[in-house]
Amino acid sequence: MGRIYNFSAGPAMLPEEVLKEAAEEMLDYRGTGMSVMEMSHRSKAFEAIIQEAEKDLRELMNIPDNYKVLFLQGGASQQFAMIPMNLMKNKVADYIITGQWSKKAYQEAKNYGTANAIASSADKTFSYIPDCSDLPISENADYVYICENNTIYGTKFKKLPNTKGKTLVADVSSCFLSEPVDVTKYGVIYGGVQKNIGPAGVVIVIIREDLITEDTLPGTPTMLKYKIHADEKSLYNTPPAYGIYICGKVFKWIKSMGGLQAMKERNEKKAAILYDYLDQSKLFRGTVVKEDRSLMNVPFVTGDEELDAKFVKEAKAAGFENLKGHRTVGGMRASIYNAMPIEGVQKLVEFMKKFEEENLK
Amino acid sequence: MGRIYNFSAGPAMLPEEVLKEAAEEMLDYRGTGMSVMEMSHRSKAFEAIIQEAEKDLRELMNIPDNYKVLFLQGGASQQFAMIPMNLMKNKVADYIITGQWSKKAYQEAKNYGTANAIASSADKTFSYIPDCSDLPISENADYVYICENNTIYGTKFKKLPNTKGKTLVADVSSCFLSEPVDVTKYGVIYGGVQKNIGPAGVVIVIIREDLITEDTLPGTPTMLKYKIHADEKSLYNTPPAYGIYICGKVFKWIKSMGGLQAMKERNEKKAAILYDYLDQSKLFRGTVVKEDRSLMNVPFVTGDEELDAKFVKEAKAAGFENLKGHRTVGGMRASIYNAMPIEGVQKLVEFMKKFEEENLK
Ligand SMILES: Cc1ncc(COP(=O)(O)O)c(C=O)c1O
Ligand SMILES: Cc1ncc(COP(=O)(O)O)c(C=O)c1O
Ligand SMILES: [Mg+2]
Ligand SMILES: [Mg+2]
Ligand SMILES: [Mg+2]
Ligand SMILES: [Mg+2]
Repeated sequence: MGRIYNFSAGPAMLPEEVLKEAAEEMLDYRGTGMSVMEMSHRSKAFEAIIQEAEKDLRELMNIPDNYKVLFLQGGASQQFAMIPMNLMKNKVADYIITGQWSKKAYQEAKNYGTANAIASSADKTFSYIPDCSDLPISENADYVYICENNTIYGTKFKKLPNTKGKTLVADVSSCFLSEPVDVTKYGVIYGGVQKNIGPAGVVIVIIREDLITEDTLPGTPTMLKYKIHADEKSLYNTPPAYGIYICGKVFKWIKSMGGLQAMKERNEKKAAILYDYLDQSKLFRGTVVKEDRSLMNVPFVTGDEELDAKFVKEAKAAGFENLKGHRTVGGMRASIYNAMPIEGVQKLVEFMKKFEEENLK
Repeated sequence: MGRIYNFSAGPAMLPEEVLKEAAEEMLDYRGTGMSVMEMSHRSKAFEAIIQEAEKDLRELMNIPDNYKVLFLQGGASQQFAMIPMNLMKNKVADYIITGQWSKKAYQEAKNYGTANAIASSADKTFSYIPDCSDLPISENADYVYICENNTIYGTKFKKLPNTKGKTLVADVSSCFLSEPVDVTKYGVIYGGVQKNIGPAGVVIVIIREDLITEDTLPGTPTMLKYKIHADEKSLYNTPPAYGIYICGKVFKWIKSMGGLQAMKERNEKKAAILYDYLDQSKLFRGTVVKEDRSLMNVPFVTGDEELDAKFVKEAKAAGFENLKGHRTVGGMRASIYNAMPIEGVQKLVEFMKKFEEENLK
């Protein structure tokens, strides 16, 4: 079988060029006589890899010098604890609840202080982003937390919340590097790489230097202190080296594609193919209000569970993998991250049209 | 350049067969049309990978049914906190200090309760293992902690300590799967995989079920609770999937080599080649007392720092990589893990003989 179109929400498709290069370098990375998997993380060769990855990411995102870039382990889920343990100086933080991931982060934060849910779209199954222009931000909030792109529900903050001067912390796991971003508007931007950037096992944290302090909450494990990792340039202990190497290749790939502005245009084009079809389809419909639609995760339904299941099954047989919606919501979801080619979306829509013809009563 | 002999203490050499297979499967894992890096961790294909890895590890180590096997992130260093946070019910634990890694674990544990250093070999630069047959084990100790193979100093516990009935916790990062082990003697066996098993970014924890409880210390992050990961079979969140896949291949390789008894014999043979030479050399000498010598990490010196540096430099030029001792101790260290072929050690000794002839005054 050839390569298939993989609509998984993460881990997800990677650029074929990246995988080919990785395969070619597997036994001998550029004349070193070893695989990157076998390399001491203190070696010159690996230091060049991690430094170049950071440099390219800084270029792509235009990250100012007063922000550190950390390559860590534990996934986004571990950040749910690291953020309050490192940032809750007043032991107060405000959370905007737009889906399961922000809810989990909020629940974890409650173990470390007062976490306030200052807005939520739970009332309509997280199918929209609440108005965040004038929220009751807590006077002594250490930060305001959002999940910028909601992987499960397919919504995206098109406008950042008005935090009234408080530090903004954003989980960008499922929209990382999908479009240009103004880093200066955030205190912390973080995400697991396994959607848009690389293999699971690396989380990237971009954090403003003044937020990196010694005085973490009592009982914070050494490995969960940003300062430890910042001081050691992500080499406090053995890093997830192979994953970082693949991320570096994806950064180069994005640069070769024209950077984040080009990615945004490509992603808008890709998403429009699917959304335009959904809007005119008589069988399928998107589940998210138009103005909050994600470019990355596109959930849709027929309104009939049996028909949904039939669609997922037939799509799979036709080479469209992982279209089933998240186990907590059902329906379908097409995740169309950076590495999904336009043809993948075009062919999916062709397939959906055929399915609609065959199944519309 | 061809593949070189890499004596790194970790990340370290992997079997060439494993790397070849990984390269071949990079773009299309066995007809799935995708790389293992791109695979949903909830997919059937990945579930088969992680389940088979666990099964093979259980077979290799003869792990009893009342032990769980967890594939986690954060490296061994994160276990330094996870162990006390999960196991310190009485808030007392006894540590045997045989090198930098047990010392770090001990220091981390102090953040969570009373950690007692009940024995140490610091008096002689950790060049031996203390007599642990009758130590002052604390009456209410939750566990007794050892680092079974000391990567930096090249010592190994040949006999486990008498814990007087208390739970034994062992860091086996640098001796994992190097010889048969009686799992029933331990409460927890854990290690980072990046020495003997796979790429950095995976830590394997083998833990007796009765030690997996809800009542962790207050403030323990969800991601640092053994119970969370045990209940979800290491899929609570996105696991370091590609690393686990490579570990699985190494388990198969060890099985094909004849299992742990065969590995032990091979490792003894390999280490003897080096130790026998060191013992009769007039230029080089090992730094560890004979009866406590590690089969995995072999530190040695000439007694002259300049000559040590000359040796490391010339060895590198001749294709023997990473022979420099740990930055905290100097001299040389040859790490000869499972994947180091016998020829690698033979050729190293030939090279050392030649260097001795040329440099012995
Ligand atoms: C937006 C978002 N945040 C957090 C997570 C959790 O990430 P991890 O599995 O790396 O802990 C996910 C996973 O899918 C996600 O989509
Ligand atoms: C015995 C031992 N324990 C712990 C560690 C730390 O492992 P990690 O870098 O995965 O945190 C090492 C690393 O070399 C080690 O050799
Ligand atoms: Mg979500
Ligand atoms: Mg419609
Ligand atoms: Mg040591
Ligand atoms: Mg000698």
